Amino acid sequence: MKERRYLPIRQGSGSDLPQVGEFAPFPVARRVNSSHSVTMDDAMENGMGSYQERPRTFPSMRSKSHYPLIFRMLLGINARVLLVLLLLIFGAVFYVGASTSPIVIFVFSICIISFFFSVYLTKWVLAKDEGPPEMVQISEAIRDGAEGFFRTQYGTISKMAMVLALVILGIYLFRSTTPQQESSGLSRSTSAYITVAAFLLGALCSGIAGYIGMWVSVRANVRVSSAARRSAREALQIAVRAGGLSAIVVVGMAVIGVAVLYATFYVFLEVDSRGSMKVTDLPLLLVGYGFGASFVALFAQLGGGIFTKAADVGADLVGKVEQGIPEDDPRNPAVIADLVGDNVGDCAARGADLFESIAAEIINPSGFILFPLVVHSFDLVVSSIGILSIRGTRDPGLIVPIEDPMAILQKGYSVTIVLAVLTFGVSTRWLLYTEQAPSAWLNFALCGLVGIMTAYAFVWITKYYTDYKHEPVRVLALSSATGHGTNIIAGVSLGLESTALPVLVISIAIISAFWLGHTSGLVDETGSPTGGLFGTAVATMGMLSTAAYVLTMDMFGPIADNAGGIVEMSLQPESVREITDVLDAVGNTTKATTKGFAIGSAALASFLLFSAYMDEVASFAHVSFKEVDIAIPEVFIGGLLGSMLIFVFSAWACSAVGRTAQEVVNEVRRQFVERPGIMEYQEKPDYGRCVAIVASASLREMIKPGALATISPVVIGFFFRLLGHYTGQPLLGAKVVASMLMFATVSGILMALFLNTAGGAWDNAKKYIETGALGGKGSDCHKAAVTGDTVGDPFKDTAGPSLHVLIKMLATITLVMAPVFL
Amino acid sequence: MKERRYLPIRQGSGSDLPQVGEFAPFPVARRVNSSHSVTMDDAMENGMGSYQERPRTFPSMRSKSHYPLIFRMLLGINARVLLVLLLLIFGAVFYVGASTSPIVIFVFSICIISFFFSVYLTKWVLAKDEGPPEMVQISEAIRDGAEGFFRTQYGTISKMAMVLALVILGIYLFRSTTPQQESSGLSRSTSAYITVAAFLLGALCSGIAGYIGMWVSVRANVRVSSAARRSAREALQIAVRAGGLSAIVVVGMAVIGVAVLYATFYVFLEVDSRGSMKVTDLPLLLVGYGFGASFVALFAQLGGGIFTKAADVGADLVGKVEQGIPEDDPRNPAVIADLVGDNVGDCAARGADLFESIAAEIINPSGFILFPLVVHSFDLVVSSIGILSIRGTRDPGLIVPIEDPMAILQKGYSVTIVLAVLTFGVSTRWLLYTEQAPSAWLNFALCGLVGIMTAYAFVWITKYYTDYKHEPVRVLALSSATGHGTNIIAGVSLGLESTALPVLVISIAIISAFWLGHTSGLVDETGSPTGGLFGTAVATMGMLSTAAYVLTMDMFGPIADNAGGIVEMSLQPESVREITDVLDAVGNTTKATTKGFAIGSAALASFLLFSAYMDEVASFAHVSFKEVDIAIPEVFIGGLLGSMLIFVFSAWACSAVGRTAQEVVNEVRRQFVERPGIMEYQEKPDYGRCVAIVASASLREMIKPGALATISPVVIGFFFRLLGHYTGQPLLGAKVVASMLMFATVSGILMALFLNTAGGAWDNAKKYIETGALGGKGSDCHKAAVTGDTVGDPFKDTAGPSLHVLIKMLATITLVMAPVFL
Repeated sequence: MKERRYLPIRQGSGSDLPQVGEFAPFPVARRVNSSHSVTMDDAMENGMGSYQERPRTFPSMRSKSHYPLIFRMLLGINARVLLVLLLLIFGAVFYVGASTSPIVIFVFSICIISFFFSVYLTKWVLAKDEGPPEMVQISEAIRDGAEGFFRTQYGTISKMAMVLALVILGIYLFRSTTPQQESSGLSRSTSAYITVAAFLLGALCSGIAGYIGMWVSVRANVRVSSAARRSAREALQIAVRAGGLSAIVVVGMAVIGVAVLYATFYVFLEVDSRGSMKVTDLPLLLVGYGFGASFVALFAQLGGGIFTKAADVGADLVGKVEQGIPEDDPRNPAVIADLVGDNVGDCAARGADLFESIAAEIINPSGFILFPLVVHSFDLVVSSIGILSIRGTRDPGLIVPIEDPMAILQKGYSVTIVLAVLTFGVSTRWLLYTEQAPSAWLNFALCGLVGIMTAYAFVWITKYYTDYKHEPVRVLALSSATGHGTNIIAGVSLGLESTALPVLVISIAIISAFWLGHTSGLVDETGSPTGGLFGTAVATMGMLSTAAYVLTMDMFGPIADNAGGIVEMSLQPESVREITDVLDAVGNTTKATTKGFAIGSAALASFLLFSAYMDEVASFAHVSFKEVDIAIPEVFIGGLLGSMLIFVFSAWACSAVGRTAQEVVNEVRRQFVERPGIMEYQEKPDYGRCVAIVASASLREMIKPGALATISPVVIGFFFRLLGHYTGQPLLGAKVVASMLMFATVSGILMALFLNTAGGAWDNAKKYIETGALGGKGSDCHKAAVTGDTVGDPFKDTAGPSLHVLIKMLATITLVMAPVFL
Repeated sequence: MKERRYLPIRQGSGSDLPQVGEFAPFPVARRVNSSHSVTMDDAMENGMGSYQERPRTFPSMRSKSHYPLIFRMLLGINARVLLVLLLLIFGAVFYVGASTSPIVIFVFSICIISFFFSVYLTKWVLAKDEGPPEMVQISEAIRDGAEGFFRTQYGTISKMAMVLALVILGIYLFRSTTPQQESSGLSRSTSAYITVAAFLLGALCSGIAGYIGMWVSVRANVRVSSAARRSAREALQIAVRAGGLSAIVVVGMAVIGVAVLYATFYVFLEVDSRGSMKVTDLPLLLVGYGFGASFVALFAQLGGGIFTKAADVGADLVGKVEQGIPEDDPRNPAVIADLVGDNVGDCAARGADLFESIAAEIINPSGFILFPLVVHSFDLVVSSIGILSIRGTRDPGLIVPIEDPMAILQKGYSVTIVLAVLTFGVSTRWLLYTEQAPSAWLNFALCGLVGIMTAYAFVWITKYYTDYKHEPVRVLALSSATGHGTNIIAGVSLGLESTALPVLVISIAIISAFWLGHTSGLVDETGSPTGGLFGTAVATMGMLSTAAYVLTMDMFGPIADNAGGIVEMSLQPESVREITDVLDAVGNTTKATTKGFAIGSAALASFLLFSAYMDEVASFAHVSFKEVDIAIPEVFIGGLLGSMLIFVFSAWACSAVGRTAQEVVNEVRRQFVERPGIMEYQEKPDYGRCVAIVASASLREMIKPGALATISPVVIGFFFRLLGHYTGQPLLGAKVVASMLMFATVSGILMALFLNTAGGAWDNAKKYIETGALGGKGSDCHKAAVTGDTVGDPFKDTAGPSLHVLIKMLATITLVMAPVFL
């Protein structure tokens, strides 16, 4: 092992421009609020500033003026006042809930219990020690970078959300109302305010979900590192519990948000009373919530995804490929940026994404809102049990060789799945039993089982294609032996081919759930079977019935990754590194498999949201809207444009990473040239500058794809509405948008599967070679595999996950913006 | 320049296993027909043989027993008897045509004139000298390899076609007939025999088109090389005229084939006479022709594409990247395989592909068969003029610096386009003028103009994204400076992004042509406008109205490429190489742009074929079939499966190249290790073994994707037909197939655009660096660019062009197989 020539140490405030890269501690950064750093910060916010023209200082993001308004207001309130307020709110919510249905009380209770459980987990995690000062310092640098970027990013996003809220308000003030709304006395302006309020609430909750993910992750990482010095099992447990903590809060918040909205509407709009709205009309009022959630999730995923992978690719290309230093080596100037990226990209964005999935799925067109709320309440319970089933070692204080951590996590997953199947049966019997069709609940329980099995199949298929224990990745690794080119060709082919099985599974799931529902015995007024679509919805709920545990496994990945980085950077002994390396590898697998899960649920959910869109169009246009006929040229064109949207969006997401990575590469090369002492541990690299480059670039780069996704459906819908108007084709805009949505969904699912699987397979092919196969580290074969891994990075962590969110965002934006197309 | 240590020389027949790699001359190979080589040959045909277990000899493919039956029969006939037969056939055809319409006589006359023109071109090209013996020997080795592979490949394809013909016969003998067919007294069995005969004729013509492309190319290449020693302009002229020769024959054959079928049906089925079929019902009888053509084209493109790119990638990876020897260096054991590949992949396959495009487009649902026949007859005339407009230099015998060959080719294209616009106007006025709607012809002339402009726009967009004079390729080249990884990311992004403009152009073209047709004044019996779809059809014809010239430019590419290879291998002086290098570079550009043209016309044509499919289903099911409603779960699933088909097909096409290239890489490495003298020109590499490896592997590898494309639509349609039967949904199979077709078309267009453009851009980014930019040849930047080029090879020359054919094949197979889904 190399001699430690320097340690990352705290610097005094001698310099008047503190740099996070120099591990400026919390108070220092807070104190400084120079006009200079404000300029930098503004430049990052509007995404236009050319950072080259300014001194490369990391913005003092902790200065109060850069908190979004809502944070500042919350922080300004005294803690006790806040608690009293919270209790009052809970009281009011309970009162409203109680007047709605006992089921709402059940949901509220579970959420509150989960809230206390998450407080317990927080205390448990925070009680763990942070290890020696060198670890703390690195961790603080990561935390500062992550929280700073988060605030700037969400500042930008919240501004965009405000503008969008005004646009929605404007549109809804001019839209016509549905007959149901008219009969319930819901005026146009009330409907507008409800939609906008729901949008803002969804956006806020999604933002909070992201913040929690990041908050937990930047605190858990160092504790896992520290625990790894003592016991592998303890490190694993901390990472799992920290991941579980965010997962529980995110799922709980999604559930309680919808429940509160539901109860409020129910009481104040006097739903189901004579002459007013029916309960099945409520979901349409909630779409704003889903859209707000997905809008924030999209930009969070894009910005975070670009940040994390630009830093990663840049660090790898110079560090690993050119200089031959290991990953997370402290000599690499981009290493802190890379570690910051894990938190803002994987944790924050994934929290927002899953929040959005659950919110969108609860707002299904069947109108049975209470049922999914109950399913997710049970999800909180069974996932908590699953998380608790992963216990610490019995020999604390000893570094013992642990069993395969993947096996431990999967045991927890099995526990959760078994419990989920049971509770799902209970839920269907409780809520879906009707005397009219006594066996309907059983059919729907089977739908749920279909969903759970689909989730399992997706996880299994992803594992098959991305784990190096199986054929595909081995073949890919072998193709690296003949060079960079054949490695890329093989990886692209593998990714494209891997779309087949998931599509078959989804096809079987949709059709079988539809027919289980259809034959359940439920009929409409005319006596024709009506449960088909609800069957599909139940399958989606089944798929998401272990969401909290899956999110836990997902969050586990970046925490373990970061812990490994901290261990590496603080130059811990080999034995400690070994432990975090194992955890990191497991984290990669769980991250890949949960992506399969996420795309599967997005595919199922989007089919539902599509039906919701058609219902909504029918409501507002006062005509039946049951078909989307792609034999009409304009409708076919809509499909073509929808698929194109996916291709261009993926292109821009990938090229954003490529461009930013090139800036990082140039900066890192420059530092190695200008400070030759870095390689000899004589000089310290300027970490802050890399963080600043990546932060500024990712804020700039997230705008283009995000704007494309948000604006183009509205523009296309409006254009074809006009064209339809002048050519005498009623509802043309709505039809074209429907077709666009369907084609975009199909292309998006396939593209996301391709990108995720190819990326994961390249990553693991490299890891397989690093185990010593085919020449091992440093061989030509390994170099080719590293190229594949680099290409896979933006595929699997930027474009792929952004597509998950995009698919759902498109479905909700068309719902909310429907008045524009009509 | 290096000293020539050896020259490729003829070997006597001392060895009893002559190897093409040793430049075995024509008679030697013909003489030998040992049982050993038969085994090898058989192994290639069934695609299963593991070549490792056998001595690596190149099969004596010239032995008669391996000609497909039809070739053997034709070769068995005396030339004079053949001529008399031909005249008799022409006489009969003229007689039948004359009883149909004077327009048919016009079409026949033009075709016959074009036939004589192509005979003139053939004589002109063959009259050119073949250069010194070393060139002749290399050329003969290429010719032997290409013709041998062609025969084996088409042997396999013809066997599959025979099986398929039997399947079709079986299906049609059990299908129900349409009311029109019944009223015309067309019995079920007659209809079956007509369809099968049309299928076989289409397959045969497509095969012949491919053969002609290859035949011309392997003869023109050496003449271009030889001419390059004298004059650049003469070399250019030979390449253009040779390309033009195949183009004229291919287009002419497509036109005359349809015309003969049309006239025959017209006369023998007594079309348009009282109580019989209407002329608009005829296209349904012709679909077999289109399917036969596309079936052969698909396998030809797959097999040829795998051959050419596996050889190319394999040769480059070891030769250029590992050993640092130039392209087409005689020391590279894979170089002959690479040159053979240009002929079987680019020439033969492209001929079959374009034949198929024209055939499919003539069989449009509007029923106006004569109009496209006239348009293509004019195409033959104007393209011939365009080809002749490219003249030889005035100073023969001198190597003069020539003007940019691209400019010369484009001047010819401009001449053709201007003439095409004029003749298109004449055609519409002549054939589409009706007193009922006096200005309709003008609207349709404008539709044609839309098509021509679309073609031009596609060529321009492709050029913008793939030519290094423009921004995108420069940015791509720059991204190579930061490594292999960023180069690939940038190329993938570029390709994905490049789908946007073509999709917008196609959208505008389809909608504007539809509305021009719709408002033309044509009305159906009920008085509602009816010309919309025909407007789109006319736009497609407009797009293809310069097809022969575009095909000429396309064929020019591989001929110039081969000429360059022969010059390089026969170690000609630098000045000669410079000329062929320039021609080669121009050929790359024309190849890329004609791919844009091909996918544009496929997009337009597929929309037409889709309408034809819906008409056919309606005819056979005796119910109206006007809508494909993707809100039905099964129909949505059909779309998902259709898009998946595109992804998996692309995966298998690419991975076939990757796998085969790896075999080549290992073989080439082995030869370099076992025969160290090769690098010193002391020992001759075993070219034949590489040819045999690639030939055997590409025959094996073409089966999987080809079978997927052929079988899956039938299986999906049949499965959902059964499901519909048991769940009480009439026509479910037909609807699911329609949706599958539409989604596959959209995904296929986008995927093909992505693959073609990314591949072309990578190729030219490398070429840009080779001009000396960014460090030039041999720099790290260049190495990264070569990786990109390697990845792009299967994208742009295997998967991409195969997708063009696949899109059209899917449209025709669903038409022919429709009885299975009903």
